[in-house]
Formats: sequence, structure tokens, C-alpha cells
Amino acid sequence: MKQISVKSYKPRGFIGRYQHLIKDEVIPYQYEVLSDNIPDAEKSHVIQNFINAGKALGGEAAGDGFYGMVFQDSDAAKWLEAVAYSLAVFPDKALEEKADRLIDIIAAAQDADGYLNTYYTIKDRNKRWTNILEGHELYCSGHMIEAAVAYYEATGKDKLLSVMEKNAGHIYDVFIKGGHKGYPGHPEIELALLRLYDVTGKEKYLELAKHFIDIRGVDPHYYEKERQSRDWTVWNGDGRNHEYQQSAAPVREQRDAVGHSVRAVYLYTAMADLAAKTQDGSLKKACENLFESITKRRMYITGGIGSTVHGEAFTTDYDLPGDTVYAETCASIGLMFFMAKMLSVSAKGEYADIMEKAFYNTVLAGMSLSGKNFFYVNPLEVVPGISGKAVTHRHALPQRPGWYTCACCPPNAARLISSFGKYAYSEKGDTAYCNMFAAGEVSFENGIHLRCETEYPYGFTVKYSVIKGGKIAVHIPSWSEEYKLTFSGRGTKAVINDGYAYMQVGDGEEITLTLDGGVKTVYPSSKIPALSGCAAIMRGPLVYCFEGVDNEGDVLSLRMIADSEKTALREEILGGTVTVTLQGIREKTADGLYSLKKPVREKVRIKAIPYYMWGNRGENQMRVWLPEA
Amino acid sequence: MKQISVKSYKPRGFIGRYQHLIKDEVIPYQYEVLSDNIPDAEKSHVIQNFINAGKALGGEAAGDGFYGMVFQDSDAAKWLEAVAYSLAVFPDKALEEKADRLIDIIAAAQDADGYLNTYYTIKDRNKRWTNILEGHELYCSGHMIEAAVAYYEATGKDKLLSVMEKNAGHIYDVFIKGGHKGYPGHPEIELALLRLYDVTGKEKYLELAKHFIDIRGVDPHYYEKERQSRDWTVWNGDGRNHEYQQSAAPVREQRDAVGHSVRAVYLYTAMADLAAKTQDGSLKKACENLFESITKRRMYITGGIGSTVHGEAFTTDYDLPGDTVYAETCASIGLMFFMAKMLSVSAKGEYADIMEKAFYNTVLAGMSLSGKNFFYVNPLEVVPGISGKAVTHRHALPQRPGWYTCACCPPNAARLISSFGKYAYSEKGDTAYCNMFAAGEVSFENGIHLRCETEYPYGFTVKYSVIKGGKIAVHIPSWSEEYKLTFSGRGTKAVINDGYAYMQVGDGEEITLTLDGGVKTVYPSSKIPALSGCAAIMRGPLVYCFEGVDNEGDVLSLRMIADSEKTALREEILGGTVTVTLQGIREKTADGLYSLKKPVREKVRIKAIPYYMWGNRGENQMRVWLPEA
Repeated sequence: MKQISVKSYKPRGFIGRYQHLIKDEVIPYQYEVLSDNIPDAEKSHVIQNFINAGKALGGEAAGDGFYGMVFQDSDAAKWLEAVAYSLAVFPDKALEEKADRLIDIIAAAQDADGYLNTYYTIKDRNKRWTNILEGHELYCSGHMIEAAVAYYEATGKDKLLSVMEKNAGHIYDVFIKGGHKGYPGHPEIELALLRLYDVTGKEKYLELAKHFIDIRGVDPHYYEKERQSRDWTVWNGDGRNHEYQQSAAPVREQRDAVGHSVRAVYLYTAMADLAAKTQDGSLKKACENLFESITKRRMYITGGIGSTVHGEAFTTDYDLPGDTVYAETCASIGLMFFMAKMLSVSAKGEYADIMEKAFYNTVLAGMSLSGKNFFYVNPLEVVPGISGKAVTHRHALPQRPGWYTCACCPPNAARLISSFGKYAYSEKGDTAYCNMFAAGEVSFENGIHLRCETEYPYGFTVKYSVIKGGKIAVHIPSWSEEYKLTFSGRGTKAVINDGYAYMQVGDGEEITLTLDGGVKTVYPSSKIPALSGCAAIMRGPLVYCFEGVDNEGDVLSLRMIADSEKTALREEILGGTVTVTLQGIREKTADGLYSLKKPVREKVRIKAIPYYMWGNRGENQMRVWLPEA
Repeated sequence: MKQISVKSYKPRGFIGRYQHLIKDEVIPYQYEVLSDNIPDAEKSHVIQNFINAGKALGGEAAGDGFYGMVFQDSDAAKWLEAVAYSLAVFPDKALEEKADRLIDIIAAAQDADGYLNTYYTIKDRNKRWTNILEGHELYCSGHMIEAAVAYYEATGKDKLLSVMEKNAGHIYDVFIKGGHKGYPGHPEIELALLRLYDVTGKEKYLELAKHFIDIRGVDPHYYEKERQSRDWTVWNGDGRNHEYQQSAAPVREQRDAVGHSVRAVYLYTAMADLAAKTQDGSLKKACENLFESITKRRMYITGGIGSTVHGEAFTTDYDLPGDTVYAETCASIGLMFFMAKMLSVSAKGEYADIMEKAFYNTVLAGMSLSGKNFFYVNPLEVVPGISGKAVTHRHALPQRPGWYTCACCPPNAARLISSFGKYAYSEKGDTAYCNMFAAGEVSFENGIHLRCETEYPYGFTVKYSVIKGGKIAVHIPSWSEEYKLTFSGRGTKAVINDGYAYMQVGDGEEITLTLDGGVKTVYPSSKIPALSGCAAIMRGPLVYCFEGVDNEGDVLSLRMIADSEKTALREEILGGTVTVTLQGIREKTADGLYSLKKPVREKVRIKAIPYYMWGNRGENQMRVWLPEA
């Protein structure tokens, strides 16, 4: 199975509105941030870094030098990639010109041998490739390769692609021909090289990606040796935490998802893609084990991953606190990447389920409804006074800031949302796959052409008008306890296999899928200590949460009566949404911390909103899970 | 009100058994640890440090040098203090000789000018008094002063007292006459100097204690300036975290209990003692505010304090997680010190309540029933696989180790338990106070002499036989919803005031107090996010907990039916205890992390044991709080 190209999907409905928001608000806003024109946001300087690197290469003084994280370059790459996807869907000459100018600036920052990284070019060219552990050179190249591929696919322009092919060639020379023993500190280039291979067909990129994957963890002590061999560090990493960088064992022997969660899922994405491309059974098995580890033991109900701020990392099985959680936006984006590639390994609905869960909850929660504020961390419980304040909760902010010093998440969300089509739709041979529901028109390379009408994720009827027919596979989400498929074509039948309904449909026919739109109560495994006695609410793919503003300012004193009748109601709050009300109990406890007095308990209606919309109405309490009465 | 001297209480019953355990097992075991004769325990080297310091002062090479924490000396001091208390109650010639030999070794490690600290004497005498932030010289002196006072009171021998008076004189010269601007990094010497003042009556010790308390936080930047003035550190402390060391403001302006919890309560103990001694109203008010902050907003049900491992510290109001908690044993010991001194400020039962709560739960839990294993951290929830393993839970061990690199808690528990009498009993003028119930005989300086018979904390009848009568005040614990006082003397009446029953009783009379021995359900404030929907069980002062070994190995799937009938049963497990069983529900949840399937719920009897006994039967799940069904 392969993902469609972004331009093959013309969005409408919910996804269309989000992609318009990216085009109209997010991309322009982020360009201003990257250009340091937003006074209240953290300084970026990323474009100036490229300009300064170009000056340094031209023999001039490097302006005001380098500013930012060692991986600052990647913020520009992710913005460019988002622009590419947006242009693929919504052509925009002015935006394209802006992107072309940035590409010119980036191209001018490339060294004669193909090397491209402003941190080292400005600060010290002699340090190149000496710090693979922390240095992020391969990571930044990976992101710029992704941008180049996307921009080429969207616009047909190959300037950045040429730059990055030359850069990839340089990396090939260093690591393959030159025998450099390093493997990526922050995986990313592996998945990017596989995309470069897809678009160019050049085997050397496949070879290089495979090399980086194969040698990872074969010598788990590589990073420590590297540390000892150099007299400088970025943030004093000593390379001894092998789990952190997924290097404790060769990747084919890894069983548990460990360490920095973004690094983990970026690596697993490349592993899955390589397994599909090369029919590598042991790699496929490793990916399946890691999928199980994440989704059966280490994932939040929101599709968030990474339980701790310490190393932005996975911890141990069933350790899923909602308040001190990390659940980085980028990690859930990476989980979607991983799932998309797992679908290319095996067309199983469970991968589409997780992709959808991550998208509609954590990924969308990462951005405010205005498109101008962003969460890095996505807690499932917020208590003003504790969240963002107590030393253990300092990272779990109760409100979205405008930007971050470490600004990986905002542009990552932009590129993901604007490329939604390639996650929603894919194809394999003569079969068109609908993995997620996305209103609009989609055309597949195999000729199939569909129009999808739906109000998903708020409406649960999905109608496919078949413009050009063939074999179509539609994912039936596992949360839908009941569903109905109807066809305008007499005699059309669906065969269900691994979560997909496979159908042969003719031109002009219609498929109507009706999903279960009921409000569901979700019960956690008793193995999760943080959730004992609790329940949550979902409707469709949307996890719901309780905010103070809808519940008399106090969510902590609420319990839910899980069996009570639940009412889903279209409301005009938050730009239009569907709220859920149900019966709950409010407890009035005695004064003091602990009391022998039984709380006074009162039945009340309690109201929930979709989790992805939380924190858009000022600072207040929020909870996904409530104790069950 | 002043505490009785330890030798005035002859223990029996529960306290007697614990004090015998300290004498028979803990003190000998700890001496072997301090002498490095226990192969499996962490190395101590503390006695050898004193020997080596003595050699260095005598002009010899300092043996194998210094080993351990910068405050290693204090482990010997706390052991000596525990020995003094034990000798006060159980004279033991061999033990006294062992202590005398150690005192000789310590005395030989004192410099000619009175300075005494092995770290600096062995490593670099030029560094003396240059690092008050981290250096612990005042802290170690404080502990040795406490040992000297206790040993003098127990044995009448004044060798160590003379050594420490000379040492205190040296400190007076440095800080008062010499104008050194530092104030204790780790408060301790303040409370010790006040004890030295009590026993010697010398005003200079009161003056020095008052000086350290008064200047604290007046210049909050003292530590930063000190850091800048020296070229060495112990653990790279930069002094900027003013909350950590309670130096953000002068002590009389402090409202919230903040920072390192042991430092906090040691400081507050001295503040309260000074407030009582000097009738300092603003200091008294500050102590009352800090008491409120701790007990109304920042304390665990077990009397544990300090919610986080980061800085071993208080966090924010109502942030009381049971699994990532710190609740250091020493902090609850310090809380008892603070409460004992608050009683000397005002005879209020609430101080005795907290003292008792800390003792019977966290302090006793700090030591195994064998007396040979110790907790530093006292969690309220333990889940093997997460506790002690996940990076956020690494400090919350599921089992007590034999010793620690930082071994403050084990000898601290020994000295507290062996001196229980002076917390249980105190006096003011002609009134004898019984703050906690302790079987045995007690004589007061005012001539009152009582014999107390009780099986407390498991039995709830407390009988005082009055050998020599007078005015007696008996604390009525606030947990006792009902109680009955009866008197053998006709016409005896009790006047209740602030949690104490005041009675005038004659020689030969008897007082019988019958407390409420029922099993109680405790409900947490709804402001504590970690405890939403939960309840706990207490009987008398004992908080109960549920361990896996009593509950089919799985506590996480249990809920409690709080209203159900509870059975307290004397059992022979754990050396004899009273268990509590009640009705609960066991939930069998579906496979996977989250499910739409309602758990299968089955009524079961669930069993709890006293919290202080947890972890004595191997590694297993443990919970104090269970979700309420």
C-alpha cells in the first residue's frame, strides 16, 4: 500500500476547514514567527541563520551569527513542507514566491560539497559530523529532504530537491564511502531518505536509509565512544542512556517502545517503510512488536505517547499519568507516520484506528482553534495552581503559548494537517483504500476517483459517490460497535477483512456507510494505576473532556454516572461543536485535607467537549477521566 | 510546656517493644553499618572518617581519607543520640563503653580551636566556613550537639558536651564575633543550640540560635554571593533556589511551607522553640501559618510531607500524588519535632494529633519490623514494574534497603523511637501533659507520677494509675469521634480545652479513657486531584493500606464499598497485628488499555493492614487509597 500524493485530495468539510486554517492563518503566522516579526513569541531567527550561513560561505562575516537550538534549521524545513502541501491543494502564487525566496536563501547556505547546516556552517565547520549524538545534522537534512520532496511533488520545481540530493550524496559519501560509524542521534533522515528514494528511484538513498537502520544499536556504545573522542558537547549528553536513543540493541531485536518518544516513532516509521519496501520479515516483526508495546501498554486514550518529561520519553508499561504526562504533539504526529507505514506493511484496520485516534485528539489539540497558539505537551488533566507550576508539572501548561524556544511541534502540526489526504487515502494495485474519513474528492493513480461527503467527526454518515469505479476498501473504525453499509448498485457486496470493507463498485454508484454515533463510555484497564475507578467519554473518534467553564468552575469534585443517558448536542460554542451531557455527582467535601465526614453528594448534569478543543476559553480545570460513581 | 527528659519514662507495651527493638537490633545493626561490617549494605566509613581526621590533626597521614556525603559525620551523631536515649531507658554497660570509645574518637577529631568536621579536616582545612550553602558544617555540629546533650542527660558524662560547647563557642566566634554573614544551608544547629541552652543555661547559645533564625532570608541572595566568592562546590548548588532553602524572605514573613521538607521542619522547630522561649509573637504567628500550610494543604494522610523527589521538597497546595511522593522519613520525624515545639507555644490538641499521625504511620513505616531495613521515601501507592523503575518513580522503592549512601533516615528513626517519651509526655508548671498514649511509667519534674496501661494503638482503653497526683492534661485525639473518661475518684471532673482534658487527680486514683476503636472511612478533600473518588481506612491513629499479598495479588482492580461493615481482627501475621476487612468490588476489565466493554464487577472481601507494616512480606502492590464504589 502506498500513500496518495497530497494533491490528489481536494478537501471539504472538517478537514477542508482545518486545511484552510493552515493556509490562511497558520502558515502566514508561522512565517512571521520564523522571520521574528511577532513581538510576543519566542525568537526564532531561523531564516536569518540561513542568510548568515550563506554570508559565511561567501567569505563575509556571518551577520549576527547563529541563534537557537542546534536543530533550528528544521523549523524552516517543516514550514516549507507545510507550504508545499498547502500549495498542492490550494495554489497560491504569492505564497509560492515566498517559498521560492526561502529556498533560494537555503540553497545559498549549502557548502560546495553539499553540506547544509547553519549551526555548524556559522559556528565551526570543523565540528561537522563529530557529534552525531546531539548534533542533529542528519535530522535537519532529513527534514529538508522531506520539504524538498513535498515541494517538488506540489510545484514540480526541483531546486530544493537538487540541493537535497546533493546533500544526501554528501551524507552518502561520509557514512557509506567514508566509513563514518555513526547512526542518527535523532532518527528522521531514515524516513526522509526513503521518501527521496520514492520520488527519485535512486537506489543509493534506499541503501543509505537501510544502512542507518541496520547499524543502529549493533554497537550500543557508539555514542559514548564518540563523546570521548570530542572535546565539546551541545547539552552535555554522554550517550550512556541507550534506551533514550533506541540504541540498546539492533532494531530487529527491540521489543518495547522506549526512550524519547518522537525519536522512537520516527525510527519505527522508517523501519516499517523499509520492511514494506524490502519484504524484510524480521523488521516487520520488530515493527509489530513495537506497535503492540505502544498501543497495548504505553499509550494514552488520546493517542498521546511518552509518559514523562524526563527525556520526553516512554517509561514502563501501564504508567500513564494524565497530569505529569508528556504526550508531545510531535510524538502523536510521528505515531501517525508510523501507522501510515504499518498500513503499507499490512492493510489492518487497527493501524488506521490508532492513526485516527492520534489525529483527532492529540494532534488537533496541539493547536488552538485560532491556529496561533500551540501545545508541545498534551495533558489529560489540568489543575490551575498545580499544572505548569509544581516542579513535577512545570511542562504541562494550562494554556497554549504562541511559540516555543524548541519549536518542533507548531510547524509539525501544520505539515501534518495540510497533508491529511495522504494519511486518509492510499492504494495498493487496483485497490483504493479509505483509511480515514475525509470529505472532498480523491483520485488514485489506479484511476479510481471518489467524492466523499460527510460531517465526520461530528456526523456519522459517510457517502462515497463513485466517479470512477474499481475496488474500494473502506476502513470500519473499531470504536463503531454497529455500522451499516448500503449501496446504490444492486448486488454490490462488501467483504470484511482486518477492519476494512472491500467492495467492487462501478462508475456512478454510491456507497453509504453509517457509523455508530452514540456516545460511548470508555473503561481503562485495571492495570493502569492512574485511572483506577475512572471512566471517559467518546463519540466517534473524539475523546471528550470536562472543563471548568462548562461545569461551575470545578471539575475535581465531579464523578460521572457512566450508565446514565448521554445527550449529544450541537452548540455554537468554540466555533461550533457537539457537546455531551450526562448525569454526574458533585461532591462537597468537608474542610481540611482529610475528613471522617462523608461528602455531601448531589446529582448534577455534567458537560463535556471534544478534547482537542480544550483550553480555548481561558485557564481552567480540565479532565478527560472522571471517577465513576 | 517543656518535654520531659527521656529517662523519666519507663516504657512498656507497644512503645516498649519498639524501644527494645531499637536497643536489641537497630543500635547494634547500625553500629556495624557505621563500622562497615555489613557486607550487603552501602559503605558508611563514618567512624573511620573521625579516626582519620584525628590522625590528620595529629600530624599523621589521614589513613584512607574521607569517604561519604559531606554530612557523613551526622550519621555517627544520630547513632550516639539514639544510644543515649536507649541508655536512659535501658542501662547497658557494654553499649555505654562502646559509645564512650566513639566519643573519644570524635573528641580526638576536634581541632584546637574547637572546629569539628571530618570532611574539611581531612580534605582541606582552608575551605572551612566558605560554603555554608552546601557544606553542612553547621548541620553536623547541630547533630553532634544534640547527641552531646542527650548523652549528658542520659549518663551524666560531659566529655562530648564539653567538646560541643567548645565547638559552639568556635561557631559563636566565627558568626557573631567574626561577623560571618552566612546562615545555615540545612537548618539544624538552631534547634540544637536551643537544646544546648536548655541544658547549660548559657545565654550565648540562645543568642546564636536567634541570630541564625533572625538573619535567614533577610538577604535572600547571600548564598549566590557566597557561591560567586568561592571556586569549589559540593554538588554544584548555585543558591538561586531560595525556596529550596527557605531563604526567600525573613522567616517571620514566610507563609507557605516550601522547599526541602526536612530543612523546612527543622527550621520551623527552632522557630517554634525560640518563639516559646522568647514570647516572640511575630515568630509564633509565622509558625502557626506554616503549620496551617503543611497540615491544611500539603500533607499526606500518613503525616508524610514533601510531594516531590525534586529537591526532596514541598510543591504546591493540594499536589499530593501517592506514587511519586517523597514523604521522607526524616521529614515526618522533623514534623514531630515541630509539633512538640508548637505544643510548647500553645497546648493545642491539633499539634499532638499531627505528631501522632506522623509517628504511627510514616515514621514507623520508615523501618522494617526487623529493624534492619529502612525507607527513605514512603509512598502511598506501590506498583511493582512502575515503582522504583519508571524514571518518575525511581526513588519510590517497593522494598526497604539495608542502608543508603545518604543515610540520614535510619539513625534518625532510631533516635526518635528511642526518645518517644519526651514527645508523649511534657509538663508546664504544675500540669502534666499526656500528648500521646504510651504505656509504662512516667515521672514529671513537678512531682506527678503516673502509670499508663494500654494496648494502644491497637487497643483503645487507656488507664492512668496516679501514683503521685496533681493536675493532669490528657490529649483526646481528634480522630476519636466518641470517647469516655471515667475516674475512680468521686467528684473528679474533666475540663476540655483545645483538645486536652484537664483533670485534678489525687494519689492512688485512676483515670480511664475509652476511645473510639471503630474502623473509620476517611474522605479526601475534592481539592486533591490525586485522590478524586477515593477513600481510605483508619483505626485509631493507624492509617491502613491494602497489599497484594492479602488481596489475591492484585490491588489495582479493587474498589472499596466505604459504607460496608468493617471487621477488625487480631491476626498473627506480621508479628501480630489487627487487620481490617470490608466489602469491596473487584473489576475484571477487558483486554487492551481502553475498552467500551463495562468491566465485570464482583463483590469480594478486601483486607487491609496498618500502613506502617507494609512491605514486610516481599515486593507486591500496595495502596492506601482505593476508589470508592
